[in-house]
Amino acid sequence: MARTMQAIVKPEAKPGIEVREVPVPEFGPDDVLVKVEAASVCGTDLHIYNWDQWAQGRIKPPLVPGHEFCGVVAAVGKNVKAVKEGDFVSAEMHVACGRCFQCRTGQAHICQYVKIIGVDADGAFAEYVVIPESNIWDLDPSLPREYASILDPLGNAVHTVLAGEISAKTVAIIGCGPIGLFAIAVARACGAAAVYALEVNENRRKLAAEMQADAVLNPSTDDVLGFIQGKTYGIGVDVVLEMSGHADGMRLGFQILRTGGRVSLLGIPSRPVEVDFARDIIFKGAVVQGINGRKMYETWYQMEALLKTGRLDLRPVITHRLPMHEFAQGMDLLKTGEASKILLYPNS
Amino acid sequence: MARTMQAIVKPEAKPGIEVREVPVPEFGPDDVLVKVEAASVCGTDLHIYNWDQWAQGRIKPPLVPGHEFCGVVAAVGKNVKAVKEGDFVSAEMHVACGRCFQCRTGQAHICQYVKIIGVDADGAFAEYVVIPESNIWDLDPSLPREYASILDPLGNAVHTVLAGEISAKTVAIIGCGPIGLFAIAVARACGAAAVYALEVNENRRKLAAEMQADAVLNPSTDDVLGFIQGKTYGIGVDVVLEMSGHADGMRLGFQILRTGGRVSLLGIPSRPVEVDFARDIIFKGAVVQGINGRKMYETWYQMEALLKTGRLDLRPVITHRLPMHEFAQGMDLLKTGEASKILLYPNS
Amino acid sequence: MARTMQAIVKPEAKPGIEVREVPVPEFGPDDVLVKVEAASVCGTDLHIYNWDQWAQGRIKPPLVPGHEFCGVVAAVGKNVKAVKEGDFVSAEMHVACGRCFQCRTGQAHICQYVKIIGVDADGAFAEYVVIPESNIWDLDPSLPREYASILDPLGNAVHTVLAGEISAKTVAIIGCGPIGLFAIAVARACGAAAVYALEVNENRRKLAAEMQADAVLNPSTDDVLGFIQGKTYGIGVDVVLEMSGHADGMRLGFQILRTGGRVSLLGIPSRPVEVDFARDIIFKGAVVQGINGRKMYETWYQMEALLKTGRLDLRPVITHRLPMHEFAQGMDLLKTGEASKILLYPNS
Amino acid sequence: MARTMQAIVKPEAKPGIEVREVPVPEFGPDDVLVKVEAASVCGTDLHIYNWDQWAQGRIKPPLVPGHEFCGVVAAVGKNVKAVKEGDFVSAEMHVACGRCFQCRTGQAHICQYVKIIGVDADGAFAEYVVIPESNIWDLDPSLPREYASILDPLGNAVHTVLAGEISAKTVAIIGCGPIGLFAIAVARACGAAAVYALEVNENRRKLAAEMQADAVLNPSTDDVLGFIQGKTYGIGVDVVLEMSGHADGMRLGFQILRTGGRVSLLGIPSRPVEVDFARDIIFKGAVVQGINGRKMYETWYQMEALLKTGRLDLRPVITHRLPMHEFAQGMDLLKTGEASKILLYPNS
Repeated sequence: MARTMQAIVKPEAKPGIEVREVPVPEFGPDDVLVKVEAASVCGTDLHIYNWDQWAQGRIKPPLVPGHEFCGVVAAVGKNVKAVKEGDFVSAEMHVACGRCFQCRTGQAHICQYVKIIGVDADGAFAEYVVIPESNIWDLDPSLPREYASILDPLGNAVHTVLAGEISAKTVAIIGCGPIGLFAIAVARACGAAAVYALEVNENRRKLAAEMQADAVLNPSTDDVLGFIQGKTYGIGVDVVLEMSGHADGMRLGFQILRTGGRVSLLGIPSRPVEVDFARDIIFKGAVVQGINGRKMYETWYQMEALLKTGRLDLRPVITHRLPMHEFAQGMDLLKTGEASKILLYPNS
Repeated sequence: MARTMQAIVKPEAKPGIEVREVPVPEFGPDDVLVKVEAASVCGTDLHIYNWDQWAQGRIKPPLVPGHEFCGVVAAVGKNVKAVKEGDFVSAEMHVACGRCFQCRTGQAHICQYVKIIGVDADGAFAEYVVIPESNIWDLDPSLPREYASILDPLGNAVHTVLAGEISAKTVAIIGCGPIGLFAIAVARACGAAAVYALEVNENRRKLAAEMQADAVLNPSTDDVLGFIQGKTYGIGVDVVLEMSGHADGMRLGFQILRTGGRVSLLGIPSRPVEVDFARDIIFKGAVVQGINGRKMYETWYQMEALLKTGRLDLRPVITHRLPMHEFAQGMDLLKTGEASKILLYPNS
Repeated sequence: MARTMQAIVKPEAKPGIEVREVPVPEFGPDDVLVKVEAASVCGTDLHIYNWDQWAQGRIKPPLVPGHEFCGVVAAVGKNVKAVKEGDFVSAEMHVACGRCFQCRTGQAHICQYVKIIGVDADGAFAEYVVIPESNIWDLDPSLPREYASILDPLGNAVHTVLAGEISAKTVAIIGCGPIGLFAIAVARACGAAAVYALEVNENRRKLAAEMQADAVLNPSTDDVLGFIQGKTYGIGVDVVLEMSGHADGMRLGFQILRTGGRVSLLGIPSRPVEVDFARDIIFKGAVVQGINGRKMYETWYQMEALLKTGRLDLRPVITHRLPMHEFAQGMDLLKTGEASKILLYPNS
Repeated sequence: MARTMQAIVKPEAKPGIEVREVPVPEFGPDDVLVKVEAASVCGTDLHIYNWDQWAQGRIKPPLVPGHEFCGVVAAVGKNVKAVKEGDFVSAEMHVACGRCFQCRTGQAHICQYVKIIGVDADGAFAEYVVIPESNIWDLDPSLPREYASILDPLGNAVHTVLAGEISAKTVAIIGCGPIGLFAIAVARACGAAAVYALEVNENRRKLAAEMQADAVLNPSTDDVLGFIQGKTYGIGVDVVLEMSGHADGMRLGFQILRTGGRVSLLGIPSRPVEVDFARDIIFKGAVVQGINGRKMYETWYQMEALLKTGRLDLRPVITHRLPMHEFAQGMDLLKTGEASKILLYPNS
């Protein structure tokens, strides 16, 4: 096996990224070395690229980012039993501590000491990546190969949609980035009564329509509240999935929710948000949930099961495929909103 | 309006039924008089027809049976606001007392003092039927008209399927009478990972296949346990929906269930059943639920929502359409297992 | 029976209140006329007295306020079966419409068309009050008589405490008005691991200590976050019950909550509140619930059951007993924070 | 440290037990060696002693039994961080595989590949026992020392009681062995409305009364159904905790349950049981749960929290304290029903 490899590297504490030759990473007795077949780009990677405030507080360069990927097992540590050389795999990149209260009570997805591969340790924008055995996910051979690298964000969508009852419920999805788009497909596959997608960006609205949302609205120009009331006998939607992280989106979500409904918040607002708690949460008897990552590993089983039914058509979300060294071009496509999910291929 | 009407009547305490001319029923200030457009036959009606032990203990002749129907509002009592003359309606035929502990804590579907129209009071196998306003269900105009009379058993299926998580779960349905067949459609529409239908009767197995069960098995000849383990990595199904009421079906259900799974029991066994609680429930950490009727009126809202998505194709279940006065022939079709759901039309 | 009675009346749209001789109210066939034995004062009554913005938008004078009371049935309408003359009763004063989606799915406590007796119709600050049969609550004879008029706010506390798991959980209660104080007792009786009470007012802190909170803190001077972390291995409390309605209290509540915990919001903030959703709700995977009124009638059954155990000592909360015509003095006691719950007695 | 130790040993496949000198067990890098301070006897140990059918199928002699204990850490493997030498500890003796579906979805307590220390590997009836780090439980110093060895069965009780709502609920506990007795204390501490204890053995009934059950009944002579109906307005109890494993106890439990209630089954019947599913489960809309072990580690946190409140008085359950070598005498005390929980002390 090669000793060095090409990798995307955040070299130092400033904007930008480099393509570099680096050593193939070493792995321990409980680790799996994976040869990356494809990786995909997340908004988090754009934060790292831009070196914004969040990145400055969290990232310690040099770092290989990348936390969405699939690949083939190249080698396994001596204790590893879960997979073997040649297996086609992906991985949960949130590595929980296993020792805290949350980890010991079935809530590892909100472990307080989580380390994220690709954020806190070298990730998958490289030819090889090291994954602890506990976090490897052996892929069902029936899985469409093109979906194998996007399980991390698909898992966010599955986690959010299935965080409460969804079958026979009306659903509004606020924000149609990749996770919002995936959520349209998941909610429909799980028997949502109707899925209304709200998005200000025109490209994303087109994709939401391709994902077969029952209606796609532009909150900056459409009368969303009036539309939703018209569709729901004046009651409001049963479920709001907030995936924009925008203050206005959150407030709109609380407003269009029916009394007694559920709001699941996945999008991360960059600053505190002012909400009319009395009118929109308390008198409404609403339930608001913060959603984080993927349940380990219930979400992964659910995702695998839904993919196997063949009822999730995710192809519209994958808008671009690039060689990994064209990473910077990918960043530009994301910034302009032209791209939704970009797949990167090493060595191509 | 006519003063008399044709009706199917159980005239006295013995097997059989008669077609009779009877007075159009009177209605009170809180009642709705409905002109029946179609009614459908339930296994309960066969019990009444055959005058079996259950019927002997419950039915007080003379009685007009029939508790599945749709029709048009002919007149309303003076206090009624929920519907008006000309509305196309169906009804929840379990009339809860409204005063008991269960009724006052959101569990009216298990009211201890329930009266069932068509069992404890004159029902819908007639040209007209009287329904209390509280129980009338105003049908959405978009509902396929042919489904309007089968909402009672469809509601049983919806209640059972949605009594726990179903999306991304593997499901076994035991017994493919009309409710079992409906449950196949509902589970699939709600994102079940796979639906396995078990049924000893060949006609019913054919219908289960038409309903698009992922596999249809004959428990009297197939190795069901082996098949299920093969499909589930040896784990068993997540959810069992028991709709046969047979002791062997129940025991098989407990056996093929995965550790930590759910069994929802809707089928009514006619006598006590011996079960290996230690192996099949306790060590399994299973959850077993008794399911009864339809939740008032959550199930009705869910049913309406699912029907509006257009993803429930129930047509294979409706095998026969007869004039109401050919009721006895319908009974024969049911007995031989040739028929699944039979629609009856008055005045035709 | 007398034709007129003494009542507290809000005579017109301005601050203040009057004691007046008014007709004993008429009652219909489904109503119960109750001779008031005691009534108690709620913060809502202070809003009505002060004629603040909320009162100006909601109240249509003339109005007899008062929605916490107990009394003896003086007469019943001809359809009434639930109670009879001489019964000792209280009542749920939120009269739900019975027809809306919420009412028909077991959520009458958040009915969108609710009418509150004492707010939208004449209430209990009078010698007699009329209650619809559906809302009367026949009191168990074993109930301590002094608790019979405070079931409405006790029910708020029971509803909030039991809106999620409470046994073996650490709990912070923010705001120690009467409902917060009751919540201390309820949480303790239900096996809370520890109850920490937070309150800025000194009188209320003394009462919280009398209610046997495990600790009582003053958020304006104490390091609440440090204290809670010290008590919970740095994890935070499992459950926050927000009963102050203050922006600072709410924010503090979200902050001291453990990752994966529950916040139940009962206190009503008078304007929108800015919250750090990212840090305090989303990354925390928190569940936030809006709580409203009492579940009809699950909360009432729970309350009755808890009172019968004898483990709720509510006496410290009842700080004052006044003749009803001294209502204005009661208002002063409330304003200065000297009083917690004031009982009013007509004719004394 | 000593190289050999005294231990209770099941030497071969036949009834009886021996006190033997055996080597102090070796421990690996992830293990903890604990010096046993006290161990307690479970019904399982009696099965092993008697060499009944269950024991013959499960136990591979020679074996040191014993799975309830407390002690002091004597040494730790090189990877161990959770505890250190001198710590006072107990342990979860169900060692889950960590790799199966159940383990990877938060249900390790029903792991299909569980190994039980004291059943499948050498246990705690010895001077030393080896525990994997994952399963050690570091005891809070405030825990009453006499309770430290009985956390395993107390955990069974906590798991069963808290498997559904318990506060403000009426509860029947069937079978008053140690776990049933503990359940009385736990249910009371968690705000049960009333706890009714059912037990045929007189000694156990006396203990149930000492544990402050609201009533103690003998199902072989008392009219339990009549009594329960009298106490619950004819409705039945909200919750049944079945801890006898007897067919008659189970059937009685289903019968006294209210419509819509919960039955949690912990007692293990030795053969299949015939139950009237139609009347007692299906028409009742009951929920039946199989309960197994302790949730890892949610139950342990709950148990610790409840013990810290000081509201669990478990002393009546500990009826005997013996030197470990008098194990056989302990067996006799258990057989005659004279003893409830027996503590064994090595080296005394």
